[in-house]
Amino acid sequence: MTTDLPTLSINTIRTLAMDAIQKANSGHPGLPMGCAPMAYTLWQRHLKHDPKCPHWFDRDRFVLSAGHGSMLLYSLLHLTGYELPLSELENFRQWGSRTPGHPEWQSGDHPGAHETPGVEATTGPLGQGAANAVGMALAERYLATHFNRPGHDIIDHHTFALVSDGDVMEGVAMEAASIAGHLGLGKLVYLYDANQITLDGPLSLVMSEDVGARYQAQGWHVLHVENGDTDLEALDAAIRAAKDETAKPSIIIIRTTIGYGSPKKAGTSSAHGSPLGDAEIAATKTKLGWDPEAKFLIPDAVKQHFGEAVKRGATSHAAWREKLAAYKLAFPELAMELDLAVRGELPAGWDANLPSFTAPIATRSASGKVMAELTKRIPWLFGGDADLGGSTKTIVPGGDYNHEGAGRNLRFGIREHAMGAIGNGMLYHGGVRPFVATFFVFSDYMRPPVRLASLNKQPAIFVWTHDSVGLGEDGPTHQPVEHLMALRVVPNLSIFRPADGNETTAGWRYALANAHGPTGLVLSRQDLPIVTQPGAPGAEKGAYVLADGTDVIIIATGSEVSLALAARDELAKDKVSARVVSMPCWELFAAQPVAYRESVLPHDRRRRVSVEAGVTMGWREWIGDRGIAIGIDRYGASAPGEIVLEKLGISTAAVVAACKRVISEG
Amino acid sequence: MTTDLPTLSINTIRTLAMDAIQKANSGHPGLPMGCAPMAYTLWQRHLKHDPKCPHWFDRDRFVLSAGHGSMLLYSLLHLTGYELPLSELENFRQWGSRTPGHPEWQSGDHPGAHETPGVEATTGPLGQGAANAVGMALAERYLATHFNRPGHDIIDHHTFALVSDGDVMEGVAMEAASIAGHLGLGKLVYLYDANQITLDGPLSLVMSEDVGARYQAQGWHVLHVENGDTDLEALDAAIRAAKDETAKPSIIIIRTTIGYGSPKKAGTSSAHGSPLGDAEIAATKTKLGWDPEAKFLIPDAVKQHFGEAVKRGATSHAAWREKLAAYKLAFPELAMELDLAVRGELPAGWDANLPSFTAPIATRSASGKVMAELTKRIPWLFGGDADLGGSTKTIVPGGDYNHEGAGRNLRFGIREHAMGAIGNGMLYHGGVRPFVATFFVFSDYMRPPVRLASLNKQPAIFVWTHDSVGLGEDGPTHQPVEHLMALRVVPNLSIFRPADGNETTAGWRYALANAHGPTGLVLSRQDLPIVTQPGAPGAEKGAYVLADGTDVIIIATGSEVSLALAARDELAKDKVSARVVSMPCWELFAAQPVAYRESVLPHDRRRRVSVEAGVTMGWREWIGDRGIAIGIDRYGASAPGEIVLEKLGISTAAVVAACKRVISEG
Repeated sequence: MTTDLPTLSINTIRTLAMDAIQKANSGHPGLPMGCAPMAYTLWQRHLKHDPKCPHWFDRDRFVLSAGHGSMLLYSLLHLTGYELPLSELENFRQWGSRTPGHPEWQSGDHPGAHETPGVEATTGPLGQGAANAVGMALAERYLATHFNRPGHDIIDHHTFALVSDGDVMEGVAMEAASIAGHLGLGKLVYLYDANQITLDGPLSLVMSEDVGARYQAQGWHVLHVENGDTDLEALDAAIRAAKDETAKPSIIIIRTTIGYGSPKKAGTSSAHGSPLGDAEIAATKTKLGWDPEAKFLIPDAVKQHFGEAVKRGATSHAAWREKLAAYKLAFPELAMELDLAVRGELPAGWDANLPSFTAPIATRSASGKVMAELTKRIPWLFGGDADLGGSTKTIVPGGDYNHEGAGRNLRFGIREHAMGAIGNGMLYHGGVRPFVATFFVFSDYMRPPVRLASLNKQPAIFVWTHDSVGLGEDGPTHQPVEHLMALRVVPNLSIFRPADGNETTAGWRYALANAHGPTGLVLSRQDLPIVTQPGAPGAEKGAYVLADGTDVIIIATGSEVSLALAARDELAKDKVSARVVSMPCWELFAAQPVAYRESVLPHDRRRRVSVEAGVTMGWREWIGDRGIAIGIDRYGASAPGEIVLEKLGISTAAVVAACKRVISEG
Repeated sequence: MTTDLPTLSINTIRTLAMDAIQKANSGHPGLPMGCAPMAYTLWQRHLKHDPKCPHWFDRDRFVLSAGHGSMLLYSLLHLTGYELPLSELENFRQWGSRTPGHPEWQSGDHPGAHETPGVEATTGPLGQGAANAVGMALAERYLATHFNRPGHDIIDHHTFALVSDGDVMEGVAMEAASIAGHLGLGKLVYLYDANQITLDGPLSLVMSEDVGARYQAQGWHVLHVENGDTDLEALDAAIRAAKDETAKPSIIIIRTTIGYGSPKKAGTSSAHGSPLGDAEIAATKTKLGWDPEAKFLIPDAVKQHFGEAVKRGATSHAAWREKLAAYKLAFPELAMELDLAVRGELPAGWDANLPSFTAPIATRSASGKVMAELTKRIPWLFGGDADLGGSTKTIVPGGDYNHEGAGRNLRFGIREHAMGAIGNGMLYHGGVRPFVATFFVFSDYMRPPVRLASLNKQPAIFVWTHDSVGLGEDGPTHQPVEHLMALRVVPNLSIFRPADGNETTAGWRYALANAHGPTGLVLSRQDLPIVTQPGAPGAEKGAYVLADGTDVIIIATGSEVSLALAARDELAKDKVSARVVSMPCWELFAAQPVAYRESVLPHDRRRRVSVEAGVTMGWREWIGDRGIAIGIDRYGASAPGEIVLEKLGISTAAVVAACKRVISEG
């Protein structure tokens, strides 16, 4: 065994990864073995972090976008003093362990808590981490501009991401790169593990881009390390050069060998996705100068060497706390604001006297008015749109976020997927409360980050406007039909579709207060009459009786609530008495106590009709076997919105007829 | 009015677009006005097409990826002799017109039929058309390599796409560009309308890429036209140069002025998304030397000028038919195959004696065996995967598709979104029957093209493997939970989740025979016991009684069918008699006659339990008010698959308990 500490340390990372993956009989050994030198260099010489205090804002961020290499990260976290004992490494990919197959970040009691200490982002679906890192760097710059004062650089850290060949191929990563370059996020650094191997074989089978030239074209600073397997000085120099470039994000293209050290499998796709096998691990250990029999071996010298990282982190963090103390003295109000923002809380009175509405208004426009008020009260409410701000009404006062300023309007460009993933990255960073906006139909373009926000229970806010065929002339490519249901099935995600301006206010109140999962606000393009009282009492319970009646229950959401009320009036002429239930949020209603749910939808009142301008699958849950669901089980059409709705059967007459039918059928 | 025919023609396109958009009071005038010169040049000097015979394979393809400029296309189609009368232009964006807000391609009686004659692709969601065009060019090269013989270049045409700033920003377009460059698709030409304006303002707000350098890095031939507003010779020369480059796809970056001609709105975002208004239209017409009072004016000279295009098309098509006749004589078998492929039919006996299974096998592996047989019999069955072919078992014999050959294995790289959109493009082209494959969870990455294939009723085949938490250690980021339901709600899409190897064969048979919409085959990673007879009789109806019983009905799909059978055995020990219904395809079952559905799920047998390893929302449709749905209404976890399934309640014991409960409750 060598006595060279860096080599010994790097080989410790490699052998820990091999052992854990072999024990689990599952995992990706190649990346941890190939990337160990770059990770070591970053961790030991650059990363500013304190493993004992992971929630504060003085530390650098690291995202393992190539999440399949999770054992690389777990090895490092264990070695550098995070609360991840060796027993967890030995339980890699097992039920209940803190070492899942791909890194998982999960919100605990407050934003910023981690299921696995030191894991900054849930990664694995390729491209997401690369975009999350852009969101982190973007949040850092916003907070720095907003909070720092001369002599008080209280926010000042880098964001590093380890990205793979697969990451840079994904569209979401290319979109994110374009935004990062455009915004000149100089404190963002990618370490690109260019191992030239993917799961199915050599990269050359599927990729012949000049990746460096592409990033350069997208406004990045491009650096190369030819020998990432052993040249630590080159790695160190490249990371330093990347940090020195402050006007552009940097990508360091590092040529590595996947499965480095393995005599038979290094540099091949067979080192990518399966354990090496006991024999090959023994041969690899021998080649690395390791005891081939030893498992999960951490030489004492390595323990001590990495232990110094803990001391460095503690020193650095202590220094930062001193700065923070000085800052608190000098700028007590800002410091209080920072404290609140970091804890993800909302300022007192944030939701007092929010706008109410009496005249017809599109819920997207009502949303814009509510946002204007909320952004005044919550300085860290911050976001934007995918080139549709004029239509989604989400452009907030305070100017555009750009190279210099702390403007809070984020222009994401026509890049919905990256927008979602960047929003998640902003939440991972903390200190900001992002919203992102586009047309509802384009929620399809951003579905992967919506899922990840839901999995993570992140309090993301998605503003989706133009919510039905009622948008009209743009036609079926732009008219959502299946989207409400396709999102209601996503665990932990709340979908809120308000009936009018007042329910829109209630939707925003809910979205901001909901700290345990993302909320999608689904808003109309067209004007809707006001059908509720200010504050829309009852909407906060997800569903409520808006107008009572005894013969039949009509359940409606969004733009169809006024239709249901019109149907109720029609029915009254025939002496039929209908209850109208407005149901803006299924998830919220399902979470109410049984007694409340029973008061709204009594189990013995089975004459029910639902009406919603979308597919009917799923409504059986609320209307029961005997109910009738009125909806749209086909694609829309290009024509003025009111004509499309009428032609597709979303009409007062249809609701009235359905009510009469359920009554006549018993 | 000028007598210069090109200028007169271009201004006719512009004014037709303005008039139609103003009449509809909706639409995007800027792009048609700005792009008219490039469209004119392409249409009059280059595009090889016969408006009277749109379904054959001799003509060039044109995709308006910037679909919001649909009036540009409609004007051109009307002027060049397609069956699109002026009355349709006057009915732009109205119910029942053939001129919808965005171009719509819809499959009629056979693949290749168009709702609007001459429209090649449904576009509007940005980036899709750019990727569709890659699929078209890819299909053209495959067919050329496969069918052409020396002296018989029966397949030989270009694919052109008009792409916008928004298109080139979208991730799907960047992925598609990377594949096109990698494959060296030399007969693909993008005309990039670089008008520097998006809906929300100048492009510089959101984009500072060097787009040309980026495409160059991605292996494209990059050309520039500085003045796309008036320099027809430069446009012509660039298109010629693009066609001359046969080893790389070409992009011509054409600087244009959005809303060209409009005195007040040219070059601004206000020309992007709204009609110009009567006054501004009159001013524009005056500036263009037009009669400001005239509406929908087509000067006679222009009619005649464009009429020549019809003659050119007819002559070119006649020449091609002569070539085809000679080809038929020289290669009668190939000619018959081409004819069949073009008509989208299947060879006789294609589904005779397909593989059957008796030993446990993962349905992904069974699928691989079925595909190996099918690809032998159907030479135009053709597709690939997103770097997971080894896992999805979709690598077909015959080698990789590459620069030279006609290999039928398409390596899409880690680019799921472009994969889906390229598959759609292959179907738009015709002559090939594509399939595309990835992990089921990554269906989220390709949801927009799945939707478009469904909207278009295209017979796309999606092979999605690793279909539940049963995939195990990769954890929740890779474990689908909500995906079955999220796709079942998509109109026209069939989701087929087979219970075993034999149902997998049935699934492939259905997918290939289904000419009226896409099919998703949802397959297990893990081995499943064989529970059906060869051919899985009944599976072709979507649901059927697999084992009968009288006390309770258990409905299951996929890997849970064997669990249901095990529960039935357990229940029998307690003298409880259970019917087990295997339900691989909801959509197919819902389409059966009432009598058949009643025979499987009699309305008066309400004791029902469903079991499926996914969210339960939606199951109420089949189990009714009294039924119990066993499923997974949360995210999965990283651990061996059988442990995750057990821990999350997908077990024989849970099904048995639920059956007893529904029986005891009446």
